[in-house]
Order: sequence, then structure tokens, then C-alpha cells
Amino acid sequence: MSHAFVSEILGTAMLILMGAGVVANVILPKTKGFGGGWLLINFGWGLAVFAGVYVAFKSGAHLNPAVTVGLWTSDQPFYSVTGPNGVVTASILPTFGNALWYFLAQMIGAFIGAVLAFLAYKKHFDEDAEPGIKLAVFSTGPELRSYAWNFVTEVIATFVLVFVVLAFGGTPSGLGPLAVALLVVGIGASLGGPTGYAINPARDLGPRIAHFVLPIKGKGGSDWAYSWVPVLGPIVGGVLAGLLANAYVF
Amino acid sequence: MSHAFVSEILGTAMLILMGAGVVANVILPKTKGFGGGWLLINFGWGLAVFAGVYVAFKSGAHLNPAVTVGLWTSDQPFYSVTGPNGVVTASILPTFGNALWYFLAQMIGAFIGAVLAFLAYKKHFDEDAEPGIKLAVFSTGPELRSYAWNFVTEVIATFVLVFVVLAFGGTPSGLGPLAVALLVVGIGASLGGPTGYAINPARDLGPRIAHFVLPIKGKGGSDWAYSWVPVLGPIVGGVLAGLLANAYVF
Amino acid sequence: MSHAFVSEILGTAMLILMGAGVVANVILPKTKGFGGGWLLINFGWGLAVFAGVYVAFKSGAHLNPAVTVGLWTSDQPFYSVTGPNGVVTASILPTFGNALWYFLAQMIGAFIGAVLAFLAYKKHFDEDAEPGIKLAVFSTGPELRSYAWNFVTEVIATFVLVFVVLAFGGTPSGLGPLAVALLVVGIGASLGGPTGYAINPARDLGPRIAHFVLPIKGKGGSDWAYSWVPVLGPIVGGVLAGLLANAYVF
Amino acid sequence: MSHAFVSEILGTAMLILMGAGVVANVILPKTKGFGGGWLLINFGWGLAVFAGVYVAFKSGAHLNPAVTVGLWTSDQPFYSVTGPNGVVTASILPTFGNALWYFLAQMIGAFIGAVLAFLAYKKHFDEDAEPGIKLAVFSTGPELRSYAWNFVTEVIATFVLVFVVLAFGGTPSGLGPLAVALLVVGIGASLGGPTGYAINPARDLGPRIAHFVLPIKGKGGSDWAYSWVPVLGPIVGGVLAGLLANAYVF
Repeated sequence: MSHAFVSEILGTAMLILMGAGVVANVILPKTKGFGGGWLLINFGWGLAVFAGVYVAFKSGAHLNPAVTVGLWTSDQPFYSVTGPNGVVTASILPTFGNALWYFLAQMIGAFIGAVLAFLAYKKHFDEDAEPGIKLAVFSTGPELRSYAWNFVTEVIATFVLVFVVLAFGGTPSGLGPLAVALLVVGIGASLGGPTGYAINPARDLGPRIAHFVLPIKGKGGSDWAYSWVPVLGPIVGGVLAGLLANAYVF
Repeated sequence: MSHAFVSEILGTAMLILMGAGVVANVILPKTKGFGGGWLLINFGWGLAVFAGVYVAFKSGAHLNPAVTVGLWTSDQPFYSVTGPNGVVTASILPTFGNALWYFLAQMIGAFIGAVLAFLAYKKHFDEDAEPGIKLAVFSTGPELRSYAWNFVTEVIATFVLVFVVLAFGGTPSGLGPLAVALLVVGIGASLGGPTGYAINPARDLGPRIAHFVLPIKGKGGSDWAYSWVPVLGPIVGGVLAGLLANAYVF
Repeated sequence: MSHAFVSEILGTAMLILMGAGVVANVILPKTKGFGGGWLLINFGWGLAVFAGVYVAFKSGAHLNPAVTVGLWTSDQPFYSVTGPNGVVTASILPTFGNALWYFLAQMIGAFIGAVLAFLAYKKHFDEDAEPGIKLAVFSTGPELRSYAWNFVTEVIATFVLVFVVLAFGGTPSGLGPLAVALLVVGIGASLGGPTGYAINPARDLGPRIAHFVLPIKGKGGSDWAYSWVPVLGPIVGGVLAGLLANAYVF
Repeated sequence: MSHAFVSEILGTAMLILMGAGVVANVILPKTKGFGGGWLLINFGWGLAVFAGVYVAFKSGAHLNPAVTVGLWTSDQPFYSVTGPNGVVTASILPTFGNALWYFLAQMIGAFIGAVLAFLAYKKHFDEDAEPGIKLAVFSTGPELRSYAWNFVTEVIATFVLVFVVLAFGGTPSGLGPLAVALLVVGIGASLGGPTGYAINPARDLGPRIAHFVLPIKGKGGSDWAYSWVPVLGPIVGGVLAGLLANAYVF
């Protein structure tokens, strides 16, 4: 489990470093990618997942409490190693305690990743920009605020993520990390319009805490009023995906 | 067959949720992807296919009556399971009855997917926009209306889809769902310009019915006058592809 | 050889239908992809190659006289079938006669593909646009006309195409058609800026003939003065790639 | 080693030809890709890596002193050939001397690639443009100049590159060159905003020398004051990645 703990930290840090990075590149002033558009953001986050999954191969690369919850709900091991003769030689079982370890690692990793993204774009954070822009590098926020409907959007988008990830297990794909990466590009393109697709409690809450504590020039509030939506919405989406996956027997 | 029926429903629902979603993201007011461009729409639909194919692995993932018709025309099984010793252990034969079950599942799935996309973008549908914009999230429409030439475009584009999908069967690719996804990105980029590439009767008619029945604020007509083009065009394209595939012996 | 002949026709037709299609979508008036940008064109052509290669699996999918010339120069078979025991059971040898058959098939296919793209975009060709725009759907033209330097650009870009395609043969990749598709996306992005990357004599000359003979509303001249550059440049590039590949022993 | 030397030259030349090419396409006047945006540049560089890696299969395709340094730090062979029975039949050990050969080949290749890109875009270099634009085709430069923070950005971005490349070795991926290509697309999207992601000393210094010596019309200085940042930053990033990879035991 200690290997998996470090693995989740490293993978989630990589995810958030690159994910927050692409947002910084598109919305902070005077970057080379300024105004680069939604597809650039989608590919940035998708390939952030790609890199994070490769790094976190010792823990099954959840990188996301909603994925952990989905596996837990569908009673699948969090991670297992299969020996050359097809026998599972080690696995991390889907228990409450293990889930907490995964959540903790994901939160730590997300916080570290956000700090690194801040350092990579330090000079651009020092430029003048609206406080909401600077927050948006770290955490998601809705275009049209409506807690109920924003919640619905996050549930649906996370359901898609976790359900299809569970489907990967039932299908020989050979694409591995690329499949998840492309799925995240697709979810961003398709379902990211209203809320910015948190689809991952750690992805949203970890960087929000980083925004709260970091000495960012001219920063405003961290919008805690909204912060529960991208935490609870993805968890509900993950549970629903786990339940349907069980019923559908991937 | 009941497994396949559910599989086609789930896969087509996933396809339309993500496909209608990306259109909503690009054309509805106040989304994050507003004005994101044609390539964003192409990747959104392509990756919608990607996700849908993974989910529908229990039915061969047609997700499209034109694909079903193409397999039927070329007399190939709709779905088959090959055991470890290379022997086909189960298959769904290309009969008239089975085709009807596939069509029904695809229509149900498309309707469900459209409803989910509506829910995910509910607040953006509540904003003011031209009725034609709101319809365009659900169904395709031509830029230059000419039933005959729009029909020709849909026939050609669907022919490409089904013919190349049948070619996948004759070529070892290892890419699986990714190959279909990229093909659909390419068809959208190349042949989607005139009519918006329905290339799938269920993709167009299912969401059109959803548009007709859903309580969408400020919606207009569902353009039934055009609705036969994206149904018949793809079917003719699928038949032609099946015939040529048979002659060319993939 | 007759199988290969049909295969090259079908594959090259697919390539040009989708390739000319994406250009039509981006530059003809009133299309959905109008003004969609260079990356959209690059992906459109890359995925046109992707589809064409799958379709032309019975001939090794050259789809391009420069590839045929490259294989001929490096004395590799145009196509070979390997049986399950690793023995080559059939092959098309790199002779002068076989090369001519490949060239002829590629030209026929390119012509057919251009006609189909014209039909798919017929209503948009009927709109008013500069004659140069309508020609550009079919054939390439330089941004800054200089026969010598345009020739150099085509030589370099085609060298990259053929040399890397020959390198695929020496490297286990498993990506198959996707590798070629991505390579063409990359060449377009990187080296297509000056001349529009013909990098394929058939891709340019076949559609130019189609432009010459088709009843396109308001068309102008077919720019025959430039037509030799995208024919000879790619052939020289293909020869150089074949020579270097031989020296480097892929 | 002589095979590897030529291999690194060819691969790095391919990398820089296509990488400098895409920048030329997007920023030089009167190209077809002018103003094509950041994502186009990201894909161009990513697919430049893709092509370069295929070409350089005889040397392990470092193409980058930071990768060489990362392998050296983590004490892994620079290149090894595994026979059919799983036994390593040849390898290039991570010694100081071999590292120097790799560096030399990478610098030569980068210089050659820059010259070829110059030739491919010769007519566009002859047009009027700010000297800084013409330099930017060859070498990176920061948007907000701050040697310390620019250095930090290059360290972080290169760390991501080398660490994830080392992680590929510990994970079965099957994607080969595509994985590296996509990683570089992602790094460009995410971490290229402040400095233009050199992440490779040879990629920056080789073309800078080419800019210095080539007869480019209307060129200005080669910005030698900044030139150490994209050399030392990537080396430090590569060392850190190698150290962490060792500790994490990929």
C-alpha cells in the first residue's frame, strides 16, 4: 500500500501540474497559448491524464476519488498485479481503509501539482488579471451558476468517465493510458461546457486549497460556496457508474 | 440477444449524450466551449463514438442502423464471440428480426442520450437563442437546403463510414474502438460541411423526436420536412458499402 | 496484380475524396467548417490517409507514386503476404511494369475521388467564389510562387514522408495505418506552409485533371504552369528517401 | 556506436526540421498555416518527435541531451537490443564518453534540421518580418523575461518529459513512439506558455547556431544572453527526473 500511496501522489501531482498548466496557458496574460481555445484545454487535460496514468502504474492510476468510489461500489480491487501465469499475485482490496488512503494520496498529489503549476507560471500570475481568472487556473466554476443543475452536469459527466473506464476492463483495448486520455478529451469537449468538468473531487478541491494558501498576487476569494458541487457531484456520478457497471456485468 | 439489446441502448445513449453535448458546448450561449470551431465538434463526435463502442462491446457496437444494414447487406454476423481456440462460440446472425431489434435499441438509446444531453446543458437551453440553434444540438440540418444534393452528401459520407468499418474487419489493426473514432473525426472534417454528417439514422431521428417532446424553452419546429434525408441517405450509403464490400471481398 | 490494381484505385479514391473534402469544407462558401483553420485541414488529410490505407490493404496501400518510387529505389517489394509460418507466400516485385500499374491505379483513383468530393460539395461549388478557391479544393498551389523554391519544399516534405514510411518497416510499431496518418498530419503542420504539401503526384495531378474536365460553375484555369512542381518534386523526394534508406539499411 | 551516432543525427535532424517547420508555418508571413494557433504548434512538435523517434530506432531515439542525462543519472543503458529469447544482445552503456557522442550527434542533427527548415521556408524568410519572429523559428524565447523563473519553468517541463519517458520503460504500453509524441503535445499545451518549451538543449542551441550562421534576410541578434536557460534548465530537469526515477524504481 505504501507503494500505491506514493504512486497516487506522483500521478495526481502530474495530472494537476499539466492540467492546471494548460488552463494557465490559455487564460493567464501574456502566455504563448493565450486564447488558444477549448480544444487546446481539452487536449491539455487529456494528456495530463495520459502522463499521470503512466506515472501511477503502481496503484492502478485512479488519480480521482470518483474512480476509487466507482471501483469500490462495483466491488473490484483497486489494483492487482497479474503474474506471467495469469495468477493475481498481489492486489489492493476495495476496503474503506484503502479508499481513505487513496483519497488522501490524491488530495496531496493534487495540492503538489497545483503548487508546481503556480511556480511554472509564476511570472504570469504576477501580471494583472481578474481574480476569477487566477482562481480558474486552480478550480472549476460554472458559467451559469445553479447549484442544482451544475450538480446534475457533474454527475452526468463523471458517470460517463467512470462507467467507460470500468468498461475498458471488460474490453481488450491495448491502448491503456491512451484510452483514458482520449475519453477525458471527449468528456471535456462534450460535457465540459457548463461547469468546466471537474469530474474529480481531488482535481477541484486540492488546487482550491492551494489557491487559498498560496501567495498569489491580486487573488480573490476561493469560491468555497461552490466547492461542494465538484466534490459531491463526481462522487454521486462514480457511485451510479459503479452500480450500473455491476448490473451490466462488465 | 437481450444482452445485445441493452448493449446497443447503452452504447448509442453514450454516443448521443456526448455527441449532442459537444454541439451544445459549441453553439449554445454562455458555454465554455462557445465558438470552439468545427475541429472541436469533430473530435467531440469521434470520441463519442469511442466511448460508445467500448460500452457496447456485447453487441458489436453498431450504434448506427447504417452499420447494421451494411453488415446485413454483406451477410456478416452482427456480432460474434470467438473462444480462446479460435472457434466462434456465439453469434447474432444477420436476419431481418435481429436487424429490427438493433434498430429499436439504437432509437431508444439515441432518445435517452439526447435527454441526458438536454439535462447536462439545461441552463444553457434556458438562455435565449434562435430556435434553429436549439434544434441543431439534437439533429442535423443542411447549410444549403437541397433535398437531392443533401441526400447525395449523406449517401457518400455514410458509404465512407460503413465501407471503411467493413475494411477494418479485413485488416489487422489492433486499434479497435480508436480506429472507428478517428474515422468519424475524419468524416466530419472532410464530408460534414454541407449537411452536418448525420451518417446515422438513429443519431438524427432519435434526438429529433426528443427535441419534439422535450419542454425546451423557446424551441421552434423540429424540421420534419428534412428528417427523411438523414434517415434514407445513410441507409442507402450503408447498402452500397455492403454491396461493394461483398464484391471486393474484405 | 489485378487485386492490387483495384485496391490502389479504391484507396486513392478514398484518400482524395476525404482530402479534397476537408479543403472544400474549410474554404468553400457556406460550409459548416468554413474558416476552420490549418489544423483541421491537417487532420482531414491525415485521416484521409488513414481511411485510404485500410481500404487498400491488398496492395500495400501506396496511394502515392512517390511511395512506389521510394520502394522501387530501395528495391523492396511493393506488397507481400506473409503466411502464418513467417514465409512470404505472395509478393508484387518492384519492377518497371508493376510501377506503371501502380501509377495508373493511383491516377484513376485520384480522379474518381475528386469527382466524388465535387458531388458531395456540389451546392457549395455552385456558390460564388474566386476561381482560385475552387481550384484549391482539387490541387495545390504555392503561397509565394517560385518554381525553384516550391520544388525544394516539395522535395523536402516528400523525403520526410517516404523516409519515415520506410523507417516504419524497420521498427515494430503496431500502429499500422495510424502511424502513416499521424505522419501526414505532422508533415502538413510542419512543411505544408509554403506549397500546401502535395507530396504525392497523383494527389495533385489527378484532381487537377478532374478540375479541368468537370462542369464547375465559375471555374478558372487549372494552373498547368505550376502542375509539374507537385509531380516532379515528390518523385525526386521519393528517390532520395529510397537511396538514403538503402544506405542506412532500415 | 557509429550506427547510434548516425541514428541520433538523423532523428534529431528530422525532429528539428519538422519542429522548426511548424513554427515557421504559424509565424512567418504568407504561409498557409499563418496564425494557426498554439495547438497546431503543439501537434507539429509532437509529431516531429514521432517521426524522429521512428528514424532513430538504432540509438534508442534520445534526440535530446536531457533524455541522455536522465538515463545516465538513473544508470540505465542508452540503448539495448533484445534478442528473440529475451537476452540483451547488444547495448550502449551509460558512460561519460558515450554521453558525449550522443550530445555531439544531437547537436549536429539539430543544426542540419534547422538548415533544412530554413530551405523549406526560404521564400517566407525573404519576406519582411520582425527579427524576433525569424529567430523564434529557430530558438525559444520567454514571453516575460526573467532568467530565474524561465529557468524554473524549463526545469519543471523537462522533468515531466524525462520522468514520464522513464516511466514508459516500467509500463507495458505498446504505443512506442506515439506515447512520446503525445507526451510532448501535452507538455507544450500545458507547460509551454511561459518559455516555449525548449525542454531539450540541442533543440534550442543547435538551431540558434544555425540562425547565427545562416544568411537569413533581415535577421537580428541570436539572443545569446538567454541561450543558457534552455540548455541548463533541461539538463537540471533531466537529472532530477533520473534521480526520482531511481528512488521510485521504475
